[in-house]
Amino acid sequence: MAQSNKPFRRILLTGAAGGLGRVLRERIGAWADVVRLSDLGGLGEARPGEEIVYCDLSDRQAMLKLLEGVDAVLHFGGVSTEVAWDPILQANIVGVKNLYEAAQKAGVKRIVFASSNHAIGFHPTTTHLDADSPTRPDGLYGVSKVFGEQLSRYYWDRFGLETVCIRIGFSFPEPKTYRNMVTFLHYDDLVELLRCSLFTPRVGHTIAYGMSDNSTSWWDNSKASHLGYQPRRSSREFAHLFPDNADYPAEDDLARLYQGGPFITTGPIYD
Amino acid sequence: MAQSNKPFRRILLTGAAGGLGRVLRERIGAWADVVRLSDLGGLGEARPGEEIVYCDLSDRQAMLKLLEGVDAVLHFGGVSTEVAWDPILQANIVGVKNLYEAAQKAGVKRIVFASSNHAIGFHPTTTHLDADSPTRPDGLYGVSKVFGEQLSRYYWDRFGLETVCIRIGFSFPEPKTYRNMVTFLHYDDLVELLRCSLFTPRVGHTIAYGMSDNSTSWWDNSKASHLGYQPRRSSREFAHLFPDNADYPAEDDLARLYQGGPFITTGPIYD
Amino acid sequence: MAQSNKPFRRILLTGAAGGLGRVLRERIGAWADVVRLSDLGGLGEARPGEEIVYCDLSDRQAMLKLLEGVDAVLHFGGVSTEVAWDPILQANIVGVKNLYEAAQKAGVKRIVFASSNHAIGFHPTTTHLDADSPTRPDGLYGVSKVFGEQLSRYYWDRFGLETVCIRIGFSFPEPKTYRNMVTFLHYDDLVELLRCSLFTPRVGHTIAYGMSDNSTSWWDNSKASHLGYQPRRSSREFAHLFPDNADYPAEDDLARLYQGGPFITTGPIYD
Amino acid sequence: MAQSNKPFRRILLTGAAGGLGRVLRERIGAWADVVRLSDLGGLGEARPGEEIVYCDLSDRQAMLKLLEGVDAVLHFGGVSTEVAWDPILQANIVGVKNLYEAAQKAGVKRIVFASSNHAIGFHPTTTHLDADSPTRPDGLYGVSKVFGEQLSRYYWDRFGLETVCIRIGFSFPEPKTYRNMVTFLHYDDLVELLRCSLFTPRVGHTIAYGMSDNSTSWWDNSKASHLGYQPRRSSREFAHLFPDNADYPAEDDLARLYQGGPFITTGPIYD
Amino acid sequence: MAQSNKPFRRILLTGAAGGLGRVLRERIGAWADVVRLSDLGGLGEARPGEEIVYCDLSDRQAMLKLLEGVDAVLHFGGVSTEVAWDPILQANIVGVKNLYEAAQKAGVKRIVFASSNHAIGFHPTTTHLDADSPTRPDGLYGVSKVFGEQLSRYYWDRFGLETVCIRIGFSFPEPKTYRNMVTFLHYDDLVELLRCSLFTPRVGHTIAYGMSDNSTSWWDNSKASHLGYQPRRSSREFAHLFPDNADYPAEDDLARLYQGGPFITTGPIYD
Amino acid sequence: MAQSNKPFRRILLTGAAGGLGRVLRERIGAWADVVRLSDLGGLGEARPGEEIVYCDLSDRQAMLKLLEGVDAVLHFGGVSTEVAWDPILQANIVGVKNLYEAAQKAGVKRIVFASSNHAIGFHPTTTHLDADSPTRPDGLYGVSKVFGEQLSRYYWDRFGLETVCIRIGFSFPEPKTYRNMVTFLHYDDLVELLRCSLFTPRVGHTIAYGMSDNSTSWWDNSKASHLGYQPRRSSREFAHLFPDNADYPAEDDLARLYQGGPFITTGPIYD
Repeated sequence: MAQSNKPFRRILLTGAAGGLGRVLRERIGAWADVVRLSDLGGLGEARPGEEIVYCDLSDRQAMLKLLEGVDAVLHFGGVSTEVAWDPILQANIVGVKNLYEAAQKAGVKRIVFASSNHAIGFHPTTTHLDADSPTRPDGLYGVSKVFGEQLSRYYWDRFGLETVCIRIGFSFPEPKTYRNMVTFLHYDDLVELLRCSLFTPRVGHTIAYGMSDNSTSWWDNSKASHLGYQPRRSSREFAHLFPDNADYPAEDDLARLYQGGPFITTGPIYD
Repeated sequence: MAQSNKPFRRILLTGAAGGLGRVLRERIGAWADVVRLSDLGGLGEARPGEEIVYCDLSDRQAMLKLLEGVDAVLHFGGVSTEVAWDPILQANIVGVKNLYEAAQKAGVKRIVFASSNHAIGFHPTTTHLDADSPTRPDGLYGVSKVFGEQLSRYYWDRFGLETVCIRIGFSFPEPKTYRNMVTFLHYDDLVELLRCSLFTPRVGHTIAYGMSDNSTSWWDNSKASHLGYQPRRSSREFAHLFPDNADYPAEDDLARLYQGGPFITTGPIYD
Repeated sequence: MAQSNKPFRRILLTGAAGGLGRVLRERIGAWADVVRLSDLGGLGEARPGEEIVYCDLSDRQAMLKLLEGVDAVLHFGGVSTEVAWDPILQANIVGVKNLYEAAQKAGVKRIVFASSNHAIGFHPTTTHLDADSPTRPDGLYGVSKVFGEQLSRYYWDRFGLETVCIRIGFSFPEPKTYRNMVTFLHYDDLVELLRCSLFTPRVGHTIAYGMSDNSTSWWDNSKASHLGYQPRRSSREFAHLFPDNADYPAEDDLARLYQGGPFITTGPIYD
Repeated sequence: MAQSNKPFRRILLTGAAGGLGRVLRERIGAWADVVRLSDLGGLGEARPGEEIVYCDLSDRQAMLKLLEGVDAVLHFGGVSTEVAWDPILQANIVGVKNLYEAAQKAGVKRIVFASSNHAIGFHPTTTHLDADSPTRPDGLYGVSKVFGEQLSRYYWDRFGLETVCIRIGFSFPEPKTYRNMVTFLHYDDLVELLRCSLFTPRVGHTIAYGMSDNSTSWWDNSKASHLGYQPRRSSREFAHLFPDNADYPAEDDLARLYQGGPFITTGPIYD
Repeated sequence: MAQSNKPFRRILLTGAAGGLGRVLRERIGAWADVVRLSDLGGLGEARPGEEIVYCDLSDRQAMLKLLEGVDAVLHFGGVSTEVAWDPILQANIVGVKNLYEAAQKAGVKRIVFASSNHAIGFHPTTTHLDADSPTRPDGLYGVSKVFGEQLSRYYWDRFGLETVCIRIGFSFPEPKTYRNMVTFLHYDDLVELLRCSLFTPRVGHTIAYGMSDNSTSWWDNSKASHLGYQPRRSSREFAHLFPDNADYPAEDDLARLYQGGPFITTGPIYD
Repeated sequence: MAQSNKPFRRILLTGAAGGLGRVLRERIGAWADVVRLSDLGGLGEARPGEEIVYCDLSDRQAMLKLLEGVDAVLHFGGVSTEVAWDPILQANIVGVKNLYEAAQKAGVKRIVFASSNHAIGFHPTTTHLDADSPTRPDGLYGVSKVFGEQLSRYYWDRFGLETVCIRIGFSFPEPKTYRNMVTFLHYDDLVELLRCSLFTPRVGHTIAYGMSDNSTSWWDNSKASHLGYQPRRSSREFAHLFPDNADYPAEDDLARLYQGGPFITTGPIYD
């Protein structure tokens, strides 16, 4: 391949067939000569500048191969909601261990790890958190995300492999509930946060909250300010959909008590 | 009464004949089918959507009656400056106890309590405070406001009755002194902060500082960011009235040393 | 009176007929030429070195007179448990205001204020507190003790009148419950803590927890270590009365959840 | 079975054939009518008051059965050092998930979870930690222990199932290295800490460091002081084995830099 | 001289011939009837409203004379980069001691001290600092700036002489490196920060970071918010000069690891 | 020289003719084959195991020579009280810079630096400090000690040269004042603290308070607990000399207000 001016030679995007993966596929082409897309299937045809490699995160040998020649990873693969234990175990625990083993062996310098607000979902909605607040997972899914945050911390301390863990809020085209207004992450801001995470010269092991510039917030990104992330969108754009209201949820509706909202009572799902 | 679309059925505004009460009376009609206005007198005629109930805060039986049928309270009644002990005792201590007793018995869900920056006025002007900073009342009035904050905390812990305590700064049409520039709360922002306090689904027991988006500030509202309060006005609008100046007050002028300004030396007034 | 070598000329002990007052009366004679004892009654005959002055804390004029000629105060008067609002109001709010007014006018240098663990009783039993932890009163009695702590803070900031607030635990001859084992303050240690509070050259406004050297503790006195208080007794002396036990109180027994124990549900008592 | 006076009816001790398990088997008989011992094998004959149930932690159905009729658990089973990933995964991740699922279904009230100092081993030896310090696992084993701490936190938040996580130091008959002197936990103190963990009326989710009263310490148990744990032994008993020495390990010997000592470079072991 | 309306009678600007001194000379004339300019030489002709006094900071007698009649000082004199020890000693240690001695004797009320980010340059680039973060000088120059901060603190505690210490970032017309983008202080913002430092009625001893409103920041000025400093410029104006880039500096390039950048390895220079 | 079993080959003790230097000379012989003693004079004859090298700290060349062949340093040389600026400058600023330059060049691994409580003497006597509390020097002497602490921090960050800074209290045979009771450091404990500082395998840059186990304390050594220092003496041994007393110093006696005691008003002494 001819020499290009793009900043990376090869970025790996896992979970490329998922909701956010499809959004990112459209927008990250300028960052690398080659974007290697991976998922279990459903990726269609490779376009110019793309490579497609199907791979199961829990398949260790396949993962070792998937990471070869990769400079940086956007890890959006795996389970992204509260489901049964076994898929969480295979994708988010075994899979993340396989990813870091393979990345370290392949000499990858940096990983952006799609963590989740469900790593801290059992904090009350009246609490203000930052990167040092204790984790409070709200399900087996949330526990698996803490596992990933901690495993990546270990690879940083042990090998100097850098990771930005992004505790993603509600990243969909528009908020559906009051809670979504608080945790909303516009796709534009997601892409900007990934850009900052990839191009800041030094990130070490950083925890950041994936949220837009919403009026209400439970989270404080000041300890990630070395990333230079400045959200430009806001759930205020959707404020008209949520007029003032005193019909509070019932007092025993856990979704209004805890940051994790309905996840609080979804799990654990054992099989 | 026919069914309306307003968010509350009945809000009680105490101190409705006072300075801020009169401002609020003009602006909160959209929030409730009925706004019950209360004070010792001076409320004129009830307009559509209003009820007028005269009531002395220190009259327990009258207070029990005043709270009947009320969904939420904006408590602006009582003494709002450093005066003699007895009126403070009757209105701000006995009166606030009567209010919470009556509200709890009437099943009120939420109270917005007009606290004051004089609850923390004995902090130096070079100190930056947030909701967890220790209180430092600057007079008997300030002590009475701490009493109200603590009593409301007890009703939250004991009964789940929610309160937002707003430590109001200088809320008048325009700043008169340098200190007012720092503590200024524009009426528009006061109303917005009340709106946030009433319509955030969950507030528990929240301490917020009532201030606009002023350039200089001694206070940090980050721990109340679940309210989603975003001030839109600023004392910068009045900056031209306060040109640069090196004629400092005398070094022993306590008003420049402490956040409470001249209140620092006003009290105590015993009778 | 002939010149003596005792460190104070006159100490006032309020609440001298109460449970702790009677204990103290026996033990503090060496600290002052004269110990002025005060209560509503029941003090018997004055012994050598004692003066008896009956006085109602809510009687302002009587209080002004009571404080005349006093160097330091041990304030154990007033209501010491959750009772109806009116006696709390009269003794612990009006009475404490009267005390500080009179003390300031009489030139008293220092007051030891018997506060209570019920100022922080709504903290969970799994939480470790120090002097800067936010107060969480567990009843109207607890709220009144916070009032006293805050009023005394104001007199310190305003007039330089020093106070040590002692949040007394369970100070009786022996523990009756598991909770008492945690909060136990042996009379010997109470006296030692008062001695430290009176004779440390500088105390400013200090918050201290009144507890012995118990094995389990919810409280940390490190921020009061300028007092030099070293407890010498411990509830371990009574450990044999509380054998290991798995018959936990029922899960919904609030007394095991909160530091305030059974007080949590005693109040409020309105009349 | 006849009624006894022992505090628990049935305690489960997992890992009963392991190093600490064998120690505990000798010492905990007084706490329960029945001690159910479990391991993969090697438990010999059941003695009076014992039940033996062989069980693989990764066998979900067997675990559901193991927990039936159990009041409290001392979980010492699983992998206790840095080994290959697969046994860690099966015993410390799948196994711990199986334990909590089964315990919750069986109505167990409390678990004492043998966590490890390797959950925080990548902190420097010059850092002082408490229960709120961020975890810094020093291997896959350490990551698995953080997984257990977080899963147990979730079961507490979700179901009110209490856990004390004990980050055990070096618990062997005597220290072998300078580092062991710092992290030493005498068997007597281990048993005492378990006793406190089982019999404190309320523990919620507590993190405690398992160490004796050693002269040098990197850890602070003040936030677990509601347990009332008072160590009575100390590595000072072995001080004569470690005379003063300036033959420092080489500067690049990671064992002197990090609290985890030689574990720092042991892992990861992938297969 | 006829009475003017300017806020100060006489301000002293030291280091007036240096890089920032020349910028300031052009912009601060409105603040004082007389600006006394000082340096070792190179100041040209005095313009209206200016006085020129050549003076070596290490010359104690000359300094005593230099401060006579001065109301406030902008101290930009001395060494402003890592050079040999002797000039640092003479200008930044002896010189600063001479300045404070002379200022105190002359009755100066306030000094703005040009400190440097090199007082904290050995903090990692992934760390977020505020005014209370421990200093970590990155050279002898940085140590000398901490000396100045501490000496000025002493003069505040001892004599009530106020100082604002500004830890200036990169204050040049435009950023040259990625690091400059983070630490950039536009001249407009420098002047605004000086204005705030001079005209805030009360500053005590304040530590502020001299930076514009840059996207990426390592520093937090919230504890200096009593100054009312609101930057209006940003290194974003130069963002186009620094396109996204994955050619990280080599891992062992200390300039990307520490906030002090290349200074980290420049010193110490002994002669 | 024949091989010995002493832990160090050569320790340098500066200030060996001073008050503490003479005490240490008697007690540290067991730690090194050779103790090199240094001062300006007055050291008498060298005893077995001693070397005497007279040296002025401000003489750079002499210092380079003094450090040759040294493994570790106990730096007790220089000015140890508030005196005129010039001796402080020469001994405690120039001298300490010379010491660190020479030590780094000579390959010294560790220095114990005799800092002083006067580095924090302007903290009130009612404040509890630890190693991270901001410094508040109470004179030019205190400022010079902060200089040494910061210079040594730089040599640690820059070169990995370890230092323990000991903020020594009152280290004389017996306390003379109430304040001495609080800051007392018995010679036995001084020696023990030096022993810990020299033989702990890793100290990095540690700040420790040099105090015995006194009843009253303003300082907390928990962040230095990796040193394993356990004081065995206490000013309680002298408690009988300081009976209870209410003859407080006058309110304006600064010695009772600030931890630095009479130093507060001694300086600055300019010549």
